Amino acid sequence: MDINPQRVLDRLEELAGIGALEGGGVQRLAFSDEDLAGRDWVQSRLEALGLEVRIDAVGNLFGVLDPGAEGGTGAIMFGSHTDTVGRAGRLDGALGVIAALEVLEVIVASDWRPARPLILASFVNEEGVRFMPDMMGSLFHVGDLDVSKVAAARDSDGILVADEFDRLSYAGTDSIDDLQVDTFLELHIEQGPVLESNGCDVGVVTGVQGLSWFEVTVEGASNHAGTTPMDLRRDAGAVANDLGHRLRGLPSEIENLRLTIGAMRWQPNLVNVIPDRVVFTIDVRHPDSHRLAEAEGRIEALLLAAHHPANGCSVTWHSLARVEPCVFASRVVDAVSAATSDLNLSGHRMISGAGHDAQILSRRYDAGMIFIPSRNGISHHPDEYSTDEQILDGCRVLLRAVLHLAAYPAGGHHSPQN
Amino acid sequence: MDINPQRVLDRLEELAGIGALEGGGVQRLAFSDEDLAGRDWVQSRLEALGLEVRIDAVGNLFGVLDPGAEGGTGAIMFGSHTDTVGRAGRLDGALGVIAALEVLEVIVASDWRPARPLILASFVNEEGVRFMPDMMGSLFHVGDLDVSKVAAARDSDGILVADEFDRLSYAGTDSIDDLQVDTFLELHIEQGPVLESNGCDVGVVTGVQGLSWFEVTVEGASNHAGTTPMDLRRDAGAVANDLGHRLRGLPSEIENLRLTIGAMRWQPNLVNVIPDRVVFTIDVRHPDSHRLAEAEGRIEALLLAAHHPANGCSVTWHSLARVEPCVFASRVVDAVSAATSDLNLSGHRMISGAGHDAQILSRRYDAGMIFIPSRNGISHHPDEYSTDEQILDGCRVLLRAVLHLAAYPAGGHHSPQN
Repeated sequence: MDINPQRVLDRLEELAGIGALEGGGVQRLAFSDEDLAGRDWVQSRLEALGLEVRIDAVGNLFGVLDPGAEGGTGAIMFGSHTDTVGRAGRLDGALGVIAALEVLEVIVASDWRPARPLILASFVNEEGVRFMPDMMGSLFHVGDLDVSKVAAARDSDGILVADEFDRLSYAGTDSIDDLQVDTFLELHIEQGPVLESNGCDVGVVTGVQGLSWFEVTVEGASNHAGTTPMDLRRDAGAVANDLGHRLRGLPSEIENLRLTIGAMRWQPNLVNVIPDRVVFTIDVRHPDSHRLAEAEGRIEALLLAAHHPANGCSVTWHSLARVEPCVFASRVVDAVSAATSDLNLSGHRMISGAGHDAQILSRRYDAGMIFIPSRNGISHHPDEYSTDEQILDGCRVLLRAVLHLAAYPAGGHHSPQN
Repeated sequence: MDINPQRVLDRLEELAGIGALEGGGVQRLAFSDEDLAGRDWVQSRLEALGLEVRIDAVGNLFGVLDPGAEGGTGAIMFGSHTDTVGRAGRLDGALGVIAALEVLEVIVASDWRPARPLILASFVNEEGVRFMPDMMGSLFHVGDLDVSKVAAARDSDGILVADEFDRLSYAGTDSIDDLQVDTFLELHIEQGPVLESNGCDVGVVTGVQGLSWFEVTVEGASNHAGTTPMDLRRDAGAVANDLGHRLRGLPSEIENLRLTIGAMRWQPNLVNVIPDRVVFTIDVRHPDSHRLAEAEGRIEALLLAAHHPANGCSVTWHSLARVEPCVFASRVVDAVSAATSDLNLSGHRMISGAGHDAQILSRRYDAGMIFIPSRNGISHHPDEYSTDEQILDGCRVLLRAVLHLAAYPAGGHHSPQN
């Protein structure tokens, strides 16, 4: 059994045409017309394959290949998402769904029958650009986000998810509880430079680093740059720059820590006025739960030290987001590793730097991920690119790993390689 | 001879009503309807006083009290401007013009006749908020800015000064060359905290510190905050924060240096994306020309050092503005000092931290300034405030200094106090 390379590449092209932007890039923001058109496109492919389609209360899409009575339960689920950030590339999310579709195409056309149900999953609003939180669909699926919370999320124009559900007839009423899913596998581009710089074909993902986001507000006093002596200033910009400088020293003290100050907004932001207010973010990530907590403690100590009368500024902060590191199930990681070896591809065991639905689903299922290289580590941008060969290799690893995982009935929880 | 306190305070109130904003503050951006209304208001007061009004090719307004043949030339000019920044206070600029009006009211009503012509001046576009450069009217007046350059200045909506001249019939054709001005004096709020913190009534301004503005661009590469290892980053934000931290060390190394980073703009300014571009400004000021140049050299050395392959970022910069320090004429400074003493007010000799028309006019005339205290050093804001007593004291110092300066014909260049 092998995938159909042309079909995969054509479908990537076809899906990238939905929400294609003038001048390059794709945009299918969650719960928009384009997002629905993307989901409809997947749904029609599933129906053409003769699969049962289910849509749940937040719009997550499932395509079920149920082997019937002999297949029993313990379903293997695989997929990703088809929503995008603004002006995105064509792979992120879309690749995992099209690869999952290809796996089902190949299996349906073959004589082989899985020992468990297989489910393609496409989760809504993974990106969280238009409506917060991100990974909304998978959070709902594992029971960590209520449908009423989803409906009440509001975009920057004041539109509710509930409004879009009504307008687009987006939500369904289906459940997949009867299939007792116990495994989730997701193919994704790396979105980082590690595989490319190592020259490896496939990332065998062993977990997802934890993440903690802070928003820090520095408040001082706005005064004239020319007339205010240096010792009478309460310069919020000076405190923010100093904090930025100090915070960036932490990764050299805590191994494997990633720290980013991605956003900084100055007020009033004029050349000759001392800034009275600077708001900035801190994004800190670590694969180990204890080290992540240590970093958070060090960050808060630096912020607290800056909140000092000598600076003349107040420094306050709150958490914007926090996700514990996750460790993927060894039977799923091993299935990916075995599939990579079987295909004579070079695999690299690695931690995912970015967040994914798989890390949410790992709260309920045995989960795992497959990465393919991203050129220059670029994602969330029209320049996002992997070669055709890398894309097809990723699909082949997914297919083979699913065949491994679905070869035996649920209960033993061991793929043949273990 | 004394001023009429109620008239001064009523007129400040009246002028503040032109361009008054909902919720407080005043806005008469240069070459707007409100700006013209402000100028018309001054013009009608001059006409009511029976003075000759002249308007030059960029709209500068002059009110001439010419003693006739016996007065000769060597005119004494005094005034300020009536344009404002966005959402300004009521004093900056307006005070100097209303005080000049009061001086002429008092003199016209008296038996005393000056030995030289007296000229109220209200210069256009001192603020430079809507159209660059600032101090446009005084730069034109001294011959350092061509009328064609003025006409070609464009605001952020693409409107030319020339368009506004046409629409508002703003410009005139008059000159005051025949009056051979040789002195300029300006009353202004301090816009800083020095007089208030010293408990002094009047600032006897001896000069204006020089100023140099830089715009710095740091360019790196935008990548995912979670997936990009620290050592593969080209983080423009990190370089900008480091530079901010280092640059702020300069004032502790060069005495009397004032350095401000007032504006900083991050791109793409997202919590989980490494910034690829940060643009920030540096405002540096010093009363001494050599020390200002030294500071500029130190700044450029720090910027050059940051433009280093180890940072992975390019750092480029250019000058936004540069004004040499100016030293006011001793005969004008002394007239202000003497007037302050005569009135039993406490004077403080000081350098102006902010730029003013007087510093431009000092290129051609003997110039000087009088400051009154600004509460909390606040200006360019609806909270800008000086007490009625401070305002009236400022007007009295201006009147008495003008009387000193205009008591003798031009030629000797000495006020009676020297």
